[in-house]
Amino acid sequence: MPVNLPLPVADQLLPVAGVRLGTAEAAIRKLGRRDLSLIELAPGSRVAGVFTQNRFCAAPVTVCKEHLASGGIRALVINTGIANAGTGALGIANARASCEAVAAALGLAAREVLPFSTGVILEHLPVDKLVAGLPAAKGALKSDGWYQACHAIMTTDTQPKCASRQIVIGGKTVTLTGMSKGAGMIRPNMATMLGFLATDADVAQPLLDALVKEAANLSFNSITVDGDTSTNDSFILIATGASGAPAITDAASGDYKQLRDAVVDLAIWLAQAIVRDGEGATKFMSIVIEGGKDRDECRQVAYAVAHSPLVKTAFFASDPNLGRILAAIGYAGVTDLDVNALRVWLGDGREEVLVAENGGRAASYVEEAGARIMKSAEITVRADLARGDAAATVWTCDFSYDYVKINADYRS
Amino acid sequence: MPVNLPLPVADQLLPVAGVRLGTAEAAIRKLGRRDLSLIELAPGSRVAGVFTQNRFCAAPVTVCKEHLASGGIRALVINTGIANAGTGALGIANARASCEAVAAALGLAAREVLPFSTGVILEHLPVDKLVAGLPAAKGALKSDGWYQACHAIMTTDTQPKCASRQIVIGGKTVTLTGMSKGAGMIRPNMATMLGFLATDADVAQPLLDALVKEAANLSFNSITVDGDTSTNDSFILIATGASGAPAITDAASGDYKQLRDAVVDLAIWLAQAIVRDGEGATKFMSIVIEGGKDRDECRQVAYAVAHSPLVKTAFFASDPNLGRILAAIGYAGVTDLDVNALRVWLGDGREEVLVAENGGRAASYVEEAGARIMKSAEITVRADLARGDAAATVWTCDFSYDYVKINADYRS
Repeated sequence: MPVNLPLPVADQLLPVAGVRLGTAEAAIRKLGRRDLSLIELAPGSRVAGVFTQNRFCAAPVTVCKEHLASGGIRALVINTGIANAGTGALGIANARASCEAVAAALGLAAREVLPFSTGVILEHLPVDKLVAGLPAAKGALKSDGWYQACHAIMTTDTQPKCASRQIVIGGKTVTLTGMSKGAGMIRPNMATMLGFLATDADVAQPLLDALVKEAANLSFNSITVDGDTSTNDSFILIATGASGAPAITDAASGDYKQLRDAVVDLAIWLAQAIVRDGEGATKFMSIVIEGGKDRDECRQVAYAVAHSPLVKTAFFASDPNLGRILAAIGYAGVTDLDVNALRVWLGDGREEVLVAENGGRAASYVEEAGARIMKSAEITVRADLARGDAAATVWTCDFSYDYVKINADYRS
Repeated sequence: MPVNLPLPVADQLLPVAGVRLGTAEAAIRKLGRRDLSLIELAPGSRVAGVFTQNRFCAAPVTVCKEHLASGGIRALVINTGIANAGTGALGIANARASCEAVAAALGLAAREVLPFSTGVILEHLPVDKLVAGLPAAKGALKSDGWYQACHAIMTTDTQPKCASRQIVIGGKTVTLTGMSKGAGMIRPNMATMLGFLATDADVAQPLLDALVKEAANLSFNSITVDGDTSTNDSFILIATGASGAPAITDAASGDYKQLRDAVVDLAIWLAQAIVRDGEGATKFMSIVIEGGKDRDECRQVAYAVAHSPLVKTAFFASDPNLGRILAAIGYAGVTDLDVNALRVWLGDGREEVLVAENGGRAASYVEEAGARIMKSAEITVRADLARGDAAATVWTCDFSYDYVKINADYRS
């Protein structure tokens, strides 16, 4: 069961002018399940993306980067079941063949198509199956296809992740709708994580390029489930310009700021949704590190806590085992950390309790308070390193029997 | 069940001249269980140690370092149940009080005693219970007390870890006996891991200081169970000089080399024993990274593989999910790694199979071969980075349901 993650409601997912989505059963993942999605963009749409840092980046990621560089993207094709990663030269050829097939179906050039794959690594993509599924996906294209698409891009996800926002720019309503998938192999610099966020705002390409990076850093690059970085992670920001709202060309403008805030807000929602649906997750944890010398140091400490299997299993057990949190902060690599100045709090949104100070347990701390908070489904660990003014937040989930079960059984 | 870890046999654990060990039930951990160990060293013994790098190092570690610096160590006291870590000024006072009680019992000065604690963090050491247990531990002191002591230092260990070696130096038999404990929170720079290795060789202090570091790097600092670094890790090397063999004062001598090899061999055995008894372990994995530019880079890649929960759960499932191994190598942080030059093998000591080359699965690889190897209890992942001549090995275990169970239930 995901942690406080609402199911999408079909009529609350708002169409984005200039975007049509269609899905099909292509039998790439398994029979009787939609595993192929097509997204068609109106001419003039602008697209920007950020991708995995893994040296074994998947073939579709390589092709995506190449096609994005030439601009003019008109379609996206997404398959589940096979990641097309660690597949060498044939993998690249298969990713290109997928783009060519989509281009032929929609009357485009192959370089106008972005390919995405997610699933098992090292297996070759059955392009014939993908091609055979395209007519059905094309036939299903519709502007209110987000509900079907957010289902069709899932792998080990237990539920779809999709949401919409609206803002008003120049008197015109601008819509943002996004969907994400991913439940494991999630950590900084993306993950087996796909995120697609489309808006009908009209945004200049340089602003869109900067915005996709900023939004990714504050959202998808601030989550972790298991510390593994996938080969296929991609976050794509689409601006069709079809809303009729005035073009945004100035990063200092109020319009840009308004759009930026909405994009970041939705991206954080989509990223947190992945953690809430983390493999085997029973708790949603926010690790907030303050008082660091710089943001990198705060992130380093936050990730040490968020990745510790001992911390994660203690949260699963609702056990306020503060020692494991302190130990993780202690080995995070801040070699001159003054543990006597460090303070740590546990909170659940209703109350916050000081648990550690002066190099040990806080004098005022009583275990009942910690135990009460640890029973909550949403828990914040906040630490003040007392070294400076920087801060960073990382979101993660606990580590349960089901994490092992899901990942030991994944291919069987 | 530990992986291929023989139970110690009492009469195969050889006494080390100049070392006596005694244990007692002090009710620090739980009733009816030996949780207090005392080790007494003959006058003139030399002692060297290496300790955790965790900033939250435990009080006994701080006191150990202080006492070791002044030399002349004559006794060690070890309790389980309470780690005396994250305990601030009172923790230091309690560690000192333990040393004082041991000193009083044995007619020593407090600075001649080294204290060790392992167990729950953030709880205060019940010094009164430790003191009350000392007479029984002192009364039990005997030269063949290794068998009892290796049981008494266990925490979540499922079995004791103790072994002996003998070499001949200058016509005299020299004995080495060591014991270790630890099963979780194990990673480089030590862990909730205690290791004690004693020999009756006569070794000059500077050689002993260098040898303890070298042996730790090749053994205890090359293992990982869960990536967590404990607050209390300590590895202690004792040389009593009581064998009557000639003194070793020259690092270039054959005698030193012979002793060095025996110490390193026994330290590796003791460190591997911890992995074989890793919490929930069902597989023993050797991660061998070759062809790196330097040893640090090889260790970095080896640890990325060894820490990946996805790799560890795949090994638990006996699933040759090579993609997870390649993904971990890919995100290890070697930013200019050429994935097309990388080669990876899986082996089990009987056969070795090339599994990846040219950026993907090896053409010659058939999954039955991988599946056959993955069924073994001992598996080697070997990778050639094709960048240089450096190499490093890390030992780890798989990640099972029982790891979660053990760590979610530890305090209850």
